Amino acid sequence: MDKKVYAGIDLGGTKILAVLTDENGTKLRHAETSTNAAEGEEAVIGRMIALLREMLEPGEKLASIGVATAGTLNAAEGIVATAANLGWHQVPLGKKLENAFGVPVRLENDANAAAYGEWAAGAGKGTQDCVYVTVSTGIGAGIVSSGKLIRGRDSSAGELGHITLDWNGPRCPCGNVGCVELYASGTAIGRAGQRLAAERPEEAATLLAIAGGAAITSRHVAEAAAAGDGLSLGVLREAGRALGTALVSIIHMTNPEAIVLGGGASAIGEPLLGPMREAIADLGIASMAADVRIVSPLLGKEAGAIGAALLVAKG
Amino acid sequence: MDKKVYAGIDLGGTKILAVLTDENGTKLRHAETSTNAAEGEEAVIGRMIALLREMLEPGEKLASIGVATAGTLNAAEGIVATAANLGWHQVPLGKKLENAFGVPVRLENDANAAAYGEWAAGAGKGTQDCVYVTVSTGIGAGIVSSGKLIRGRDSSAGELGHITLDWNGPRCPCGNVGCVELYASGTAIGRAGQRLAAERPEEAATLLAIAGGAAITSRHVAEAAAAGDGLSLGVLREAGRALGTALVSIIHMTNPEAIVLGGGASAIGEPLLGPMREAIADLGIASMAADVRIVSPLLGKEAGAIGAALLVAKG
Repeated sequence: MDKKVYAGIDLGGTKILAVLTDENGTKLRHAETSTNAAEGEEAVIGRMIALLREMLEPGEKLASIGVATAGTLNAAEGIVATAANLGWHQVPLGKKLENAFGVPVRLENDANAAAYGEWAAGAGKGTQDCVYVTVSTGIGAGIVSSGKLIRGRDSSAGELGHITLDWNGPRCPCGNVGCVELYASGTAIGRAGQRLAAERPEEAATLLAIAGGAAITSRHVAEAAAAGDGLSLGVLREAGRALGTALVSIIHMTNPEAIVLGGGASAIGEPLLGPMREAIADLGIASMAADVRIVSPLLGKEAGAIGAALLVAKG
Repeated sequence: MDKKVYAGIDLGGTKILAVLTDENGTKLRHAETSTNAAEGEEAVIGRMIALLREMLEPGEKLASIGVATAGTLNAAEGIVATAANLGWHQVPLGKKLENAFGVPVRLENDANAAAYGEWAAGAGKGTQDCVYVTVSTGIGAGIVSSGKLIRGRDSSAGELGHITLDWNGPRCPCGNVGCVELYASGTAIGRAGQRLAAERPEEAATLLAIAGGAAITSRHVAEAAAAGDGLSLGVLREAGRALGTALVSIIHMTNPEAIVLGGGASAIGEPLLGPMREAIADLGIASMAADVRIVSPLLGKEAGAIGAALLVAKG
């Protein structure tokens, strides 16, 4: 009898990353190819189909396909409603993959798929209630509660980056005010570094030297902080407090057992994570916050593809 | 054959309210008695048992018992860990009811039980993703996602009143800063009325006359606003904006189809709800917020008991 395998595809603006897992969620192999979105949706979907066909080995029978993608989805119909990074609008991706392989296909928001992947097969394994947060240019998140992914009506749940930290704060490009992303994302860290360097150039000598004339980014701030630069440490302290305060809101809303914290945040380390942990200890309701484990992700860039595979297989 | 019936009990600091439902969640009858917590836990539990025994009619067979209660719970063990309103600490309520009736018993946080009740049998019926928010002295909430109650590790999920609106704001008694409850609860509305009346007594003449020498409460503010008092309308406008901003965070986190808004908030009406709806329209990500239905609860004070009954029967 053929061995059942489950496909997960992370459809990104730059790359298509695919994995095959067995029924236990163990990864069998992975492959990737360029998205080349400019060639149009038919070409991209053709490339997804070809990639999966190449990955299957004799004696394997594909059981299902999960696709993780950015943008707004109509998951019930398998339609990508709008994906700005692909230039897609109302693309019936689910139907096209179903026609090609004759198996069930499910679309999932990429951060939510990654959250499910880390919960089911990564750093959150063994918990029942787990929040995944990734801090990079923006802030993405996904919530698993009692072993189920919180999807919401449009598979858009988990927009932690766009909950309010300051209801009298500035507008976010999303339309909301004082969003977490304005204070705790990589973009916010770079912007705070730029602002302080412009305001207090004499104190920012180390940071400016590290940037070497380029626009200051979160990477420069992290590097300067690691070298002991006070101004950069201050920027990360404030971003860490913002992140910790946001995580307290998440803890109070969802009462998780663990938070998987990924993206650049983990790489920055203590200058960001110390103040984050202090804020959680200081501000959280003790019975809910005191023993929440904050852990690093284990699946790396494959979290979304693995999660998408497992969501169809088990979710 | 005996007819199966399902019991739900809302164990409050003042009253014990019990309902029996059929297997479809339709309420058959209700009853209530005083809690008299001062008599001690054995007496209270005895009164719960007696109340249920009296409610059962010949030809009915009790199938399960759900109990909604405030405080922190160890739901898996059926233990009320701490309930300040009852003076209880580590009370094995689940086991005692199980011994008395020989049926499964489940404890549930009271706001979460009410959320489930309104979702399953009240204003949220027919949706899959529904948030329940009750604004009274404090702010309670519960989240139903894909037809499942979000409980979290300790059945404490849904603490919407204690997510942050202003990360540089004042301390909340819960330990967090700038909590929603500090700006949008009935207590906050009364406090804002008091503060403004002390600061600008000449503008507060109407409000002070309505309070008639007593400390100003949200009820006085609502009454003055209904009479067109500008200062009170301003207080409710600000509270409504706070509530709307908080609901935007909830919408972004959980992507619901409907929000059931209960407590005194609905009674205050447009002076509070208008600014709340404006904030949602202004601040929410359009694809998630634009068509969220805001509805009034239908089950009244029985929501918690009905929800507790249904959570064991179906949840």
